[in-house]
Amino acid sequence: MSSVAGLKQSVLQANLDIVRDKLVVATFGNASGIDRNNNHIVIKPSGVSFETMKSEDMVTVHIDGSLIDHHLRPSSDLDTHLVLYRAFDDIGGVIHTHSTYATIFAQAQVPIPCFGTTHADYFRGEIPVTRSLRSEELGERYVTATGEAIVETFSNSDPLEIPAVLVAGHGPFVWGRTPKEAALNALILEECARMAWHTMQLNPQVAPISSMYRDRHFLRKHGAHATYGQ
Amino acid sequence: MSSVAGLKQSVLQANLDIVRDKLVVATFGNASGIDRNNNHIVIKPSGVSFETMKSEDMVTVHIDGSLIDHHLRPSSDLDTHLVLYRAFDDIGGVIHTHSTYATIFAQAQVPIPCFGTTHADYFRGEIPVTRSLRSEELGERYVTATGEAIVETFSNSDPLEIPAVLVAGHGPFVWGRTPKEAALNALILEECARMAWHTMQLNPQVAPISSMYRDRHFLRKHGAHATYGQ
Amino acid sequence: MSSVAGLKQSVLQANLDIVRDKLVVATFGNASGIDRNNNHIVIKPSGVSFETMKSEDMVTVHIDGSLIDHHLRPSSDLDTHLVLYRAFDDIGGVIHTHSTYATIFAQAQVPIPCFGTTHADYFRGEIPVTRSLRSEELGERYVTATGEAIVETFSNSDPLEIPAVLVAGHGPFVWGRTPKEAALNALILEECARMAWHTMQLNPQVAPISSMYRDRHFLRKHGAHATYGQ
Amino acid sequence: MSSVAGLKQSVLQANLDIVRDKLVVATFGNASGIDRNNNHIVIKPSGVSFETMKSEDMVTVHIDGSLIDHHLRPSSDLDTHLVLYRAFDDIGGVIHTHSTYATIFAQAQVPIPCFGTTHADYFRGEIPVTRSLRSEELGERYVTATGEAIVETFSNSDPLEIPAVLVAGHGPFVWGRTPKEAALNALILEECARMAWHTMQLNPQVAPISSMYRDRHFLRKHGAHATYGQ
Repeated sequence: MSSVAGLKQSVLQANLDIVRDKLVVATFGNASGIDRNNNHIVIKPSGVSFETMKSEDMVTVHIDGSLIDHHLRPSSDLDTHLVLYRAFDDIGGVIHTHSTYATIFAQAQVPIPCFGTTHADYFRGEIPVTRSLRSEELGERYVTATGEAIVETFSNSDPLEIPAVLVAGHGPFVWGRTPKEAALNALILEECARMAWHTMQLNPQVAPISSMYRDRHFLRKHGAHATYGQ
Repeated sequence: MSSVAGLKQSVLQANLDIVRDKLVVATFGNASGIDRNNNHIVIKPSGVSFETMKSEDMVTVHIDGSLIDHHLRPSSDLDTHLVLYRAFDDIGGVIHTHSTYATIFAQAQVPIPCFGTTHADYFRGEIPVTRSLRSEELGERYVTATGEAIVETFSNSDPLEIPAVLVAGHGPFVWGRTPKEAALNALILEECARMAWHTMQLNPQVAPISSMYRDRHFLRKHGAHATYGQ
Repeated sequence: MSSVAGLKQSVLQANLDIVRDKLVVATFGNASGIDRNNNHIVIKPSGVSFETMKSEDMVTVHIDGSLIDHHLRPSSDLDTHLVLYRAFDDIGGVIHTHSTYATIFAQAQVPIPCFGTTHADYFRGEIPVTRSLRSEELGERYVTATGEAIVETFSNSDPLEIPAVLVAGHGPFVWGRTPKEAALNALILEECARMAWHTMQLNPQVAPISSMYRDRHFLRKHGAHATYGQ
Repeated sequence: MSSVAGLKQSVLQANLDIVRDKLVVATFGNASGIDRNNNHIVIKPSGVSFETMKSEDMVTVHIDGSLIDHHLRPSSDLDTHLVLYRAFDDIGGVIHTHSTYATIFAQAQVPIPCFGTTHADYFRGEIPVTRSLRSEELGERYVTATGEAIVETFSNSDPLEIPAVLVAGHGPFVWGRTPKEAALNALILEECARMAWHTMQLNPQVAPISSMYRDRHFLRKHGAHATYGQ
């Protein structure tokens, strides 16, 4: 992804993907992507309907937060995206949705256990929940603080092995090497959340699958020894 | 919204919105709007299918209940709408549906707690349930009494801060500054009800989000200090 | 409905209605109607896909079970329909589906309580479950015995006040004054079952609405004092 | 099914059926078929989107696993399909999906009881869950070992009487006399799983239907005395 035009197109497409996949209720959703060569981030504009949104409506900002190219305001969640791009070096796209089941786990403040291979093919373990924000984080810096709470949650884990998080009382943030991969991860997350919810109701005692079984699936798709490309 | 024709169009659109958003089962749904300048209310006619309904089929009545302009009978829920417009000065549109999850809470007589920011962006706290109607309210004045029970429920709260209610054993009434806003609120209410239901099953001990977190979201969209328009 | 051609058309339409309303999984569904003047019953043929079914494929049989006009075999559930038409004088259409939530109550052998006005507008009280069939009823006369168990369930109630039943371990049979009304009742039944299921999980202690509230709704649509036509 | 071209077409169609029936999330699904005359198996290729897949993209392999005709790699689940065709002589098609409710039972490691006639029309008893795979089965031979665990589960039952299984922590494999029948069984399985899940929540004490009631349904569609063709 070398040109800004290409990045705008792929960010637009990721925004359309999450609508097509029914991960967006009303306007609760946004996607972004980054060009790591010059630290330019492209993100969905605020207050534009998904139906009429065009590639050229995407907003370009520097990773330091300064506006570069825009005729519309960036998504109000921009500052969370910025924190994630700064902290997680290898990610190339970020998605935020309020998709139903992922948001249910975020609201219930329950991590999503890895109950099966659907989950293990994309996430190497449970999807964590952030701590709740402290009162002093709910002021001006709220959107940034949300990103910081996410980064804190990953202090001991690799964000490309668990490319999603549940913000307590809010909803999921999901990422990937590209905006397209982030959108796919957001779709898989929602389905894994739906199945985990029902699995827990059906058998409250069930344990996650073994780490060996999980890695049998995760590692054939990811990492140095992946046996098939994504 | 100055002309009756414009109001009829926006009421028709709100009626179509709730069908598009799958909030209406069979014919259980109706939308209305008010022109506060002359206290004219426009409401869906009774017994006309949503598919063939036209702007000119909308019925106009005075806020005192007298018919002004109609070739069809008004919705059988008219009297509830009238009570709401009389009691809640700032509302401009009212919606009634039997949308699935909101109706489930109404039937279970359980308020919908504010478990997350999806809810807090539109409703400043839990969605209340009315008291049950008394036997003597189930006669001729039944539809009016339904409205009165709603108004009673809001004796200590601002209807524009909580623009929805669950009528016990019946279903939701939702409102807003315009018919369009009421229809959007009805959609968000249904999604919040769906997520709250599943949140409570997943974690029966979970508490609502803090009032500070809730207001961080509600107040950036509503009130004097809103940072972005609706 | 005087001509057989008209009845065939309305039975075809009822069969298409239940597919459109997603009440039919695979081929689990059939609709019939009766011309009471000559006791001719028209029913869906067996083994024809809903997509390609035509009005002239409908099978005509006498209420005594003898075939009158057919180039295809009648639905394998015919004998149940016959028993219902013989026992319930005022019904004009019968529908059988395996619609998801109604079938869930049938499988769980739990009646569907009247928890709200959606239910009360169409059904004057809970939807009953039949007794289980006895071993000796599972032989040759099985399909007829199913009908007899339904009729037994209504020995003390009016089938037009409760126009639906859940056959234990099987699924719903629904009826009405016409095939079209039966199809609408089947749709409302499914939605009431869905809402009742979720209502019971949310509040296991909740009681049905009062008989007075229930009748306030049922009787404005049905019976001698109905205030609006169907 | 005499020609490879015909088999490729019917395998393609089965792959499209499971997408149409919403049994496939992302790319989690594949169908195959066998020509028993020469032991040729046709299976979905790996890494091709369902939208653009053509009949000629299907991969042909011998039942011993050797590639016969392909310009694409076979599905990564091929080895499981091979084990099933070798062990179950009468099956002609195999389907694997991660369909939501069947996968939920697989994850919860709970068999799907036969609670009703929808289930009994297609499956003569509960749908079993395989044992968990042992650590030594999670290496190179993992995909084959999955098939072996399935075959082990059927050591005392007839795979054409129970044409489906839940692989623990993974999802369903389903089969039939043809790819088309396997795809239909996969759809019925998903609906039976959905209804069983809700039945168990509604009435945790409910028992499966009697074997006599079950066989009344299963045997009229299957076996020597079937009274109507499939």
